[in-house]
Amino acid sequence: MKITEIDTPAVLIDVDRAEANMQRFQAYADSHNLTVRPHIKTHKLPRFAKRQVELGAVGITCQKIGEAEVMADAGIQDIFLPYNIVGASKLDRLVALNTRVKLAVTADSDVTIRGLAEAFKDTAKPLDVLVECDTGMGRCGVQRPDQAVELAKLIAASKGLNFAGFMTFPKPGTVVQTEAFLAEAKQKALAAGLDPRIISNGGSPDMWQAHEVSSATEHRPGTYIYMDRYQVSKGVGTWEDCALTVLATVVSRPTDDRAVIDAGSKALTSDTLGLDGFGRIVGYPDAVIASLSEEHGVIDLTACKDKPQIGERLRIIPNHCCVVSNLFDRVILISRDDVIEITPVAARGRVD
Amino acid sequence: MKITEIDTPAVLIDVDRAEANMQRFQAYADSHNLTVRPHIKTHKLPRFAKRQVELGAVGITCQKIGEAEVMADAGIQDIFLPYNIVGASKLDRLVALNTRVKLAVTADSDVTIRGLAEAFKDTAKPLDVLVECDTGMGRCGVQRPDQAVELAKLIAASKGLNFAGFMTFPKPGTVVQTEAFLAEAKQKALAAGLDPRIISNGGSPDMWQAHEVSSATEHRPGTYIYMDRYQVSKGVGTWEDCALTVLATVVSRPTDDRAVIDAGSKALTSDTLGLDGFGRIVGYPDAVIASLSEEHGVIDLTACKDKPQIGERLRIIPNHCCVVSNLFDRVILISRDDVIEITPVAARGRVD
Repeated sequence: MKITEIDTPAVLIDVDRAEANMQRFQAYADSHNLTVRPHIKTHKLPRFAKRQVELGAVGITCQKIGEAEVMADAGIQDIFLPYNIVGASKLDRLVALNTRVKLAVTADSDVTIRGLAEAFKDTAKPLDVLVECDTGMGRCGVQRPDQAVELAKLIAASKGLNFAGFMTFPKPGTVVQTEAFLAEAKQKALAAGLDPRIISNGGSPDMWQAHEVSSATEHRPGTYIYMDRYQVSKGVGTWEDCALTVLATVVSRPTDDRAVIDAGSKALTSDTLGLDGFGRIVGYPDAVIASLSEEHGVIDLTACKDKPQIGERLRIIPNHCCVVSNLFDRVILISRDDVIEITPVAARGRVD
Repeated sequence: MKITEIDTPAVLIDVDRAEANMQRFQAYADSHNLTVRPHIKTHKLPRFAKRQVELGAVGITCQKIGEAEVMADAGIQDIFLPYNIVGASKLDRLVALNTRVKLAVTADSDVTIRGLAEAFKDTAKPLDVLVECDTGMGRCGVQRPDQAVELAKLIAASKGLNFAGFMTFPKPGTVVQTEAFLAEAKQKALAAGLDPRIISNGGSPDMWQAHEVSSATEHRPGTYIYMDRYQVSKGVGTWEDCALTVLATVVSRPTDDRAVIDAGSKALTSDTLGLDGFGRIVGYPDAVIASLSEEHGVIDLTACKDKPQIGERLRIIPNHCCVVSNLFDRVILISRDDVIEITPVAARGRVD
């Protein structure tokens, strides 16, 4: 089967590019003695999670228990959930999951830690807990290294829990301040007699500088497997590395300077990540995807010499590939122009 | 079962509010002799499509053939697809669908019309086709009334097709220019001996002014059934009319002025529709959902006197309810605090 036989909109995954992207970062990490723990939110496919582990990843990262359950079912043995797990229902599932795989979570408050401890206090296998540190992202995480160590002590003192280290999702471009925070937390933890065995750093945007965060023992890139317009804008990869494209059809040419495609926010999402427009059209670099409604993408062709016609099929590199994976029940795995397999996105839509 | 037993994030649909919203617009349209043809993209649920018809809607509007197939399977008999259907695969499905239900589509180019004619020329039942008019939205549609009439003639002259009228999705706030375009297209069509039987206007933002577009015979509101933050900002409904809320849990309070919830762009979407922030938190009107990543919503509490604590569950009225429906495999139907039913979103993710 060829790509030309696939109806639109559809998500195409170039498996050769994905393989090269996985190998490239694994080789980099190996050369710097960094453990790789890829975030599967980008692909949500057991196939790629297994391949990442085959290539040398120590395990995977999931954001939701539902994703972790899918991956455990598929045979993945080592899963990190860098999330504050709160509430009875999720804690029950976490206890069950911990009996099946090597598992770790994060916490950034005594409330979360006490909830975890209550759930795990009578279990046979303690739960690994890392303290989440806000090294600049402004999302979750303790604000200062001394707070991180206070929580580390609380974890270490909690029956059923095991203090495993520190974790951050850094703000892109803040390698120096990330390292400063983590190094101080590590030093203070050691001074308190604690062993921060894992120091887990994250993100694709700074992944080629991951070794500069020298306190970190592992890195959790997600987007690196597919790349996208945002990562290219940050210099993390090139257009030729982009493995995920959205295949769309031009359905209207209302004016000389406007085309409308059958991919809107339900295919590309409204994520801009600070970029202008909603994706890059392969072969039409001067075209601007100016606006999206749910089922329409409006393209400004003002700057284009050649202009696509009604019925023409376009391939679009989205701003943010991870969110695209979550919108499609299945993706099309391709090699050059051949369809290799149409595969369900097994961990799509796992909201809790 | 009570709402308190539902894990988060989840989508709650207040069926009493949805019912009142449906009845309110149907009564308005009845009083103005306007046909209602609700867009099911908002709810994607056969249950509500059937209820809309029971209350007096002439049929429904879908944006994708896949949505229409789900609704036909559920027993809906009259479906309008205001979309340029392009490509062999979709045309085959359209032919099949036309044997099952009363069906109509739109076209805004001779290319689309010739494709439809080729597919339907030997079928027993002709396909109703309306000409899409761009009355100001800048999306699909012919640019001038005379172009609309030229395409109407082409449809009328095509074996297998039946010219059924004109359709627009207007730019919000352009009632006068929408009416001017449609009135001119109608008059020119009549002068050419054509009968624009249906003149279909759309959208919730201007639905209470729908009668001012006096050439229109029908209106296609979508969002009106649930309402959302955007519609409230436009004065279409009140906060008390909002039937869809996202239930989320506070998982982190990293600073005095920041809370993080377990609903990010995978639950609320990145749609801003020009608004600041990503939703309104019921009970915390001064809280600002300042940023989203996929699984985290970061809330700025600076302006709040009372501040939610870790573990507290919040209900959020999203900026745009339609895109939220597309992200969840199932929604929770509620009446006050009682869970009535947990129902699959049958037409979710129908991308083609």
